Amino acid sequence: MNHFLDISQLSKIEAESLIESALILKDCVNYPSYPEYPVANLFYENSTRTRVSFEMAANHLNMPVINLDLNRSSELKGETIDDTIATLSAMGISTFIVRHSIEGLPIKLAANVQEGKHIINAGDGRHAHPSQALLDMVTIKEKKPDLAQLKIAVLGDVLHSRVANSFQQLCKLLEVGQLTMIAPDIWQPRPDKVIYGHVTNSLKEGLADADVIMCLRVQNERLKDSEQFDINTYRKEYALTQTTLKLAKPDAIVMHPGPINRGVEIDDDVADGQQSTILQQVQNGVYTRMAILQAVIE
Amino acid sequence: MNHFLDISQLSKIEAESLIESALILKDCVNYPSYPEYPVANLFYENSTRTRVSFEMAANHLNMPVINLDLNRSSELKGETIDDTIATLSAMGISTFIVRHSIEGLPIKLAANVQEGKHIINAGDGRHAHPSQALLDMVTIKEKKPDLAQLKIAVLGDVLHSRVANSFQQLCKLLEVGQLTMIAPDIWQPRPDKVIYGHVTNSLKEGLADADVIMCLRVQNERLKDSEQFDINTYRKEYALTQTTLKLAKPDAIVMHPGPINRGVEIDDDVADGQQSTILQQVQNGVYTRMAILQAVIE
Amino acid sequence: MNHFLDISQLSKIEAESLIESALILKDCVNYPSYPEYPVANLFYENSTRTRVSFEMAANHLNMPVINLDLNRSSELKGETIDDTIATLSAMGISTFIVRHSIEGLPIKLAANVQEGKHIINAGDGRHAHPSQALLDMVTIKEKKPDLAQLKIAVLGDVLHSRVANSFQQLCKLLEVGQLTMIAPDIWQPRPDKVIYGHVTNSLKEGLADADVIMCLRVQNERLKDSEQFDINTYRKEYALTQTTLKLAKPDAIVMHPGPINRGVEIDDDVADGQQSTILQQVQNGVYTRMAILQAVIE
Repeated sequence: MNHFLDISQLSKIEAESLIESALILKDCVNYPSYPEYPVANLFYENSTRTRVSFEMAANHLNMPVINLDLNRSSELKGETIDDTIATLSAMGISTFIVRHSIEGLPIKLAANVQEGKHIINAGDGRHAHPSQALLDMVTIKEKKPDLAQLKIAVLGDVLHSRVANSFQQLCKLLEVGQLTMIAPDIWQPRPDKVIYGHVTNSLKEGLADADVIMCLRVQNERLKDSEQFDINTYRKEYALTQTTLKLAKPDAIVMHPGPINRGVEIDDDVADGQQSTILQQVQNGVYTRMAILQAVIE
Repeated sequence: MNHFLDISQLSKIEAESLIESALILKDCVNYPSYPEYPVANLFYENSTRTRVSFEMAANHLNMPVINLDLNRSSELKGETIDDTIATLSAMGISTFIVRHSIEGLPIKLAANVQEGKHIINAGDGRHAHPSQALLDMVTIKEKKPDLAQLKIAVLGDVLHSRVANSFQQLCKLLEVGQLTMIAPDIWQPRPDKVIYGHVTNSLKEGLADADVIMCLRVQNERLKDSEQFDINTYRKEYALTQTTLKLAKPDAIVMHPGPINRGVEIDDDVADGQQSTILQQVQNGVYTRMAILQAVIE
Repeated sequence: MNHFLDISQLSKIEAESLIESALILKDCVNYPSYPEYPVANLFYENSTRTRVSFEMAANHLNMPVINLDLNRSSELKGETIDDTIATLSAMGISTFIVRHSIEGLPIKLAANVQEGKHIINAGDGRHAHPSQALLDMVTIKEKKPDLAQLKIAVLGDVLHSRVANSFQQLCKLLEVGQLTMIAPDIWQPRPDKVIYGHVTNSLKEGLADADVIMCLRVQNERLKDSEQFDINTYRKEYALTQTTLKLAKPDAIVMHPGPINRGVEIDDDVADGQQSTILQQVQNGVYTRMAILQAVIE
C-alpha cells in the first residue's frame, strides 16, 4: 500500500491488517524508528485533533514532522499543490498528510506524486475521512470483536459527513452485520450514496437492538439556517440522551468522531458515561495512524 | 506537585526547592531525558517569549512538544477547553502549558483533568504568572542570596500586572525583608490585593535603599487613553533612568519581565547597563521552567 | 565565517568551500550532529519553501528548530528585533535565520548580536537572497563544473529580484565566463546595480549560446498594473517555451528559484522537461543550507 486515500481502495485483508497492526502497536512498549521518513502536515483546512493525532503518531515512530501553515504559504502565490508536493519531495519529505476541501484531491495528488512518496488522506471535503473510519473500527473491534453479529447505528447529519461516508464503506468491506443510518429527512444521504445498510428517520427504529451508536457532530450553523429546523426540533427527535440511549442494547457503546457539541447532539451524561468510548477512539486514533504511516512507507 | 498553578499553592519548601533545582540545572551538562512525557503549548493568548522558553525547557528534557495554533482550532467550533485537554490527553500528551485570558482558568482545568496529567499556568488574565515570579526569584537568589536582608522595589503598572501579583505572593512566601510597590495612583493595586509589603506613589521613597528594582512594562495603549496621563507625565515621574537609578543602592540590580519598552518605562543605558539582569532573567527562565516541568511529572 | 549575510561578504575561497561542502553532504550517509546549537526561524515575511528547506537542513544536523509566528509575537507590542534576538539568544538559541522586508537588516542585526550567535540572511526585501544564489551555483557546478567556460542567462524581472542580485554577485566572485540579464526595459536593473555581465532586452541575443538559463518568477500583480504590459505581451516576448528554449545551447539547463508560474514565465513542458533542474535546485537547497549552518557555528 503506497498511499492511504480511500476505504474503497483497500482490500478486506488490507483493512483487517491495518486494524490488527493498530491494536498490536497499542500493546507495544518500543516502537520502530524511521528517522529517514520525514512527514509533512499539509492541512489546507484546519483541524487540531487530526493534525496532532498524526503528529503524535509520527513522533512515536521517530519520523520528523514539518507543519505547514498553508494560509500563508507560496500556495497563495499561485503555485499548484502538485508543485508544492514536488518541491517538498525534493527537500526530502517522504509522506504527505493532506486535508483539503476539494473532494477527491488526494487521489489526484497520489497519481502525480514522485515514486517513493506517499499521500495520506486526512479528510477531503465531504467525500472521505478514511483514517477516522479505521480508528472507529479499531475501537469497535476492541469492544465488540464479532462484526458479523453487530448492529451499528450512525446518527445525525449523514448527508454532510465524510466520516459517515468512509465508515459506511468500511462496514461494507468488513461485512458488518447490520448498518442503520438515522437522520432527519433533510440530512439523509442521497440514494446513490447508500452502498450498505439502510436509512431511517426514526430514532426508535434505528437504535433498536443497536450494539454500537455512532453519533455525528451537528454543525450549529446548519441548524440556524432554517426556522423550521432549529436546535430544539433536532434535540427533541434525535439527541442522544440517557432516555434515548435506552432504545439501544444495554451494553451498546456510544461513539463520536468529535469535537462533540455538548447539549446539542449528545448530552453530558452520555458523552461522559460508562458506555461512551469517545476518548478511546481518540487514543486509538494515534495507533491507527501509526499503522497507516508504517503501511505506506513499507 | 502535580500541577503548577499559582504561587499560593506552593509551600515555602516547594518554592525553595524549585529555585534550587533551577540553579542546579543551570550548572548541569547533561539533562535527564523524558521522551515519554509529551508537552502541549496551549496558548490562547500569544506570547513568543514564554512559549519559546517552555519549548526550549522541554527540548532540553527531551520532552516532545506539540504547538497548538488556538485561533484556528476546533476550540472555535465550540469545543470546551476541558474537552480539548481530555482529547489531547487521550492522544498521549502529558503536560499542558496554558495561557488564557480567563483568570483562574488553569485551576479549574487542573480540577477536571485526568489523573496523571499536569497543568502549568503560563499566565491567566491579570491574575497570575507564577513561572515568571519564580524565574525572577531565581535571578535574585543568584545575585543577592540573603532574601531576608533585601529591599525589593516593584515599579510601574502594578494594578494590571499578573507578574506583580505572583511576585508579591512569592516575596511573602519566602519572607523577603522589604517589598515596596511604586505606582502612580491610578495604577496602584486595590488594597485587598496588597498581601505583602506596602504601596507608594513616590519613586524617591520607593527606591531608597532598594537592592532590587523590578521595572514593569507600561502598555502604551493605557498611556494614550487619558490626556492627563501621557507618556511624558509617566516618564517624568516614574521612568527608570541613569538619574533615578541613583536613588537605589549603588549595587542594586535592575530587572524587567520583558518585553521592554525602550524610552518609556526604562532607558537604553539602564536596560543595557551594568546593573541590568534582564537577559539573565530570560536565561534563568529556561532553567526555571525545566525545574517546573520536572517537578510536575515526578 | 560567523554569519551568512550577503555574497559580497564572502571571499572566493569561502564561496567555493561552501559549494564543495554542500556537494560532499549530498553524498553523505551520516551527518554530523549538533544538538547544542538550536536554530530559530525568524520569518517576518512568509516563505514556505525557504523556511522548510532550512528546517530540513537543521533536522539533518540534529539542531533543534524553533519556529516563530512573527505576526503574532511580542514584536507587535513594540519590542525591537534586536531585543527579540537578544532574548532568544539568552534562551539558548544559537543561530537566527531571518527573512524580513527591510533591506540590509540582517547586516545590522549581525552587528548587534551577542558574541557566539549567528545570523543567516534568508532574504531581505529586494536586496539579497544569498543562500538561494549559493544553491543555484551548487546546481550549476554539479551539471557544468567549468564556470569560466559558461554563458549564463538570467531571464525576467531582474529589477525586483533579490535572487538576481545575489546571483550576479556570486557570478562575479566565481568569475563565471559570461552573464547576461534579459529583461523588458521596465524590469531592467538600474545601471549602478549591474556589477557583472550585461543587460539586454532581446531574448534572442540573451539566450544565444547560453549553457544555463535562470528563469525568474513573474509576479502577476506587476503584470496587471499596466495595460501596456500584460501577460500576453510578456509571454510573447520573454516566456520560456519549447520554441524559445531552442535559442540556447541544446544541452542548456533550465533553472528557476520557484515557486514557478506555469504558463506565465515558463511552460509546463519546459519546467518539467529533460533540461529542467528545478527540483535538483530544491534538493541542493537543503544541502547548501546544511553547509551554511555548519559554516557559521564552526
